[in-house]
Amino acid sequence: MASEKGLGMVHVYTGNGKGKTTASIGLGLRASGHGFRVLMIQFMKGDIKYGELEAVKNIPNFEIIQFGRPDFVDKDNPAQIDIDLARKGLEHARTAVEKGIADVLILDEINVAVEWKLVSAQEVLDIVKSRPKNMEIILTGRYAPREFIDIADTVTEMKEVKHPYMKGIMARKGVEY
Amino acid sequence: MASEKGLGMVHVYTGNGKGKTTASIGLGLRASGHGFRVLMIQFMKGDIKYGELEAVKNIPNFEIIQFGRPDFVDKDNPAQIDIDLARKGLEHARTAVEKGIADVLILDEINVAVEWKLVSAQEVLDIVKSRPKNMEIILTGRYAPREFIDIADTVTEMKEVKHPYMKGIMARKGVEY
Repeated sequence: MASEKGLGMVHVYTGNGKGKTTASIGLGLRASGHGFRVLMIQFMKGDIKYGELEAVKNIPNFEIIQFGRPDFVDKDNPAQIDIDLARKGLEHARTAVEKGIADVLILDEINVAVEWKLVSAQEVLDIVKSRPKNMEIILTGRYAPREFIDIADTVTEMKEVKHPYMKGIMARKGVEY
Repeated sequence: MASEKGLGMVHVYTGNGKGKTTASIGLGLRASGHGFRVLMIQFMKGDIKYGELEAVKNIPNFEIIQFGRPDFVDKDNPAQIDIDLARKGLEHARTAVEKGIADVLILDEINVAVEWKLVSAQEVLDIVKSRPKNMEIILTGRYAPREFIDIADTVTEMKEVKHPYMKGIMARKGVEY
């Protein structure tokens, strides 16, 4: 339970549906509107085409940093650079927690980074548990590990009920990225 | 199918979990980062304490308008003012669609407004179907009516797996509003 450490909760957004990253961005936007400092660390993403990167430049106290490459990571055989980048992202998260430089810390796609074995669940848990008592942490991505679900205060599964790719429509600018 | 009208898709975010409104805000932010014009019409909400209202002031081309009161609407016996406000919101949506003043139109909590019978599903469908072919529409809220699910290109159910209110923790600034 996060509450053993204080008021800052741990949220998990997982599942195969839309809205995991965007919900955490929306939560970040909401928090920033109240004057909270928001830091989103994106794992396994390294592509400037993401619209949120441009948009948050206009928002005080909302920073997004990417630790990844534009290419997809090969689950069964990740490149060393992918592992190195994920580790750098984790290091950045650890520093943010140690220095308390954010009120809301979003580790975007961290669930996938763990599932892909770029970082371990235990390393993430250690960071989560050591957070300042009012720091809110959001862990996103499919395949949330059991340990994250156990420690979380809220867990939401974004469940795909209907999907357009079945119709052959590709990811589009401004919606999917 | 929305695609019969063009590329602009219809998304539904429903379910009892977190992230329906925030995911649509995040999608709006993302779209605004690409230069698209975003309009969010919030039904059954009329409270300036929502952090997103403050935050989007910093974002070009992202507007949020509320049509509701701070108080909860009584489902079994809605006040006339609640019905009037919802109808005004729908009127605003219709005008936005007719004039094509947005690329992304979010009707936040419209599913609930229909379930509460403040507006009818058919009225909403008429607006959705008459949209410009590139206009993206997002319909949010619990209790998405069957008609919305049928017309939608994507439907995501935000499913609550774990919730803190069971622990007696109330809604908090910057996270739940």
